[in-house]
Amino acid sequence: MSATVLYMSMSLDGFIAGPNETVDNGLGDGGIRLHEWDFSGPVLDEFLATGAVVAGRGTAEPADYWGGDHHGGVSIFIFGPEAATDAERSRPRVTYVPDIREAMSRAKDAAGHRNVLVHGAGVAQAALAAGVLDELELHVIPVLLGEGRRLFDRLGPDHIELERVRVIAADHGVTHLHYRVQPRTP
Amino acid sequence: MSATVLYMSMSLDGFIAGPNETVDNGLGDGGIRLHEWDFSGPVLDEFLATGAVVAGRGTAEPADYWGGDHHGGVSIFIFGPEAATDAERSRPRVTYVPDIREAMSRAKDAAGHRNVLVHGAGVAQAALAAGVLDELELHVIPVLLGEGRRLFDRLGPDHIELERVRVIAADHGVTHLHYRVQPRTP
Repeated sequence: MSATVLYMSMSLDGFIAGPNETVDNGLGDGGIRLHEWDFSGPVLDEFLATGAVVAGRGTAEPADYWGGDHHGGVSIFIFGPEAATDAERSRPRVTYVPDIREAMSRAKDAAGHRNVLVHGAGVAQAALAAGVLDELELHVIPVLLGEGRRLFDRLGPDHIELERVRVIAADHGVTHLHYRVQPRTP
Repeated sequence: MSATVLYMSMSLDGFIAGPNETVDNGLGDGGIRLHEWDFSGPVLDEFLATGAVVAGRGTAEPADYWGGDHHGGVSIFIFGPEAATDAERSRPRVTYVPDIREAMSRAKDAAGHRNVLVHGAGVAQAALAAGVLDELELHVIPVLLGEGRRLFDRLGPDHIELERVRVIAADHGVTHLHYRVQPRTP
């Protein structure tokens, strides 16, 4: 069965961007440090084999929505308010979905038997809260960023159990940690 | 040369204790989840081979200062205000040191050729800020705790580079990540 899989580069202290993020400074001050490594090997292969993308505007806008082609021309679902401008409405392959469950469900439909690539801290937090994030693939970067935007924040007091399924110690001190999110016990 | 090494169990989302910590609830609500695993293997061997301990009161008090014997009867240095009560002054093998550099330096002297075991989020943050923490050994627990006390917090905007020196995928989904803290470039 296909899975929704969060792919994120994260500092050891949990940040996915530096402080002072803007559309023109999408990674925040110094956030480029989290992306100075060679993405290769099986994790990249899996990343490129995904059949749809779910991301938030905060991730998509600084990247100009990847010109409508994140990879392989797959459908892109933006979690957030409906398109408000003609420019937004006219983006090829991009659909705006205000509900996280619907965004993930439509992306799964679009991906077919393939997995869904999930991007962004806001999307991750909403999807975890709604129980619609299946797996985490974190690229842990060997740096303490100190300040910025945290990947895991405002999740509330209920524990979310994880099953570790893979650890890869890659080049440049990057450690790929892959987990399956366990269903919450009511 | 001997090193000061932080040993901490941390949830994947960066917490080392649950919310509502008190002396009687030292791990915070639900924080026991971070300690439900078997500490064994080379990491435990190294832990037990350390020759001194540096910890904060927040770590030491709930554990009743380990009865003065954390392991092997090594000296225990408490980073924080000087002993204020007779009970504090009379604890065997326990010394209170208000300055983090002095605490680490005295612990290194006491440890001789052995490493120094460092415990606690407050101590870690102070030691990182002062540049006197040499290594990190984190036991990453497969759970998102959601709330509680973070290990890495209030570090400020300067990046601290790390060198990953070891990754161990242990039982119960626990991943041991070992890093050397790199000197800051001014």
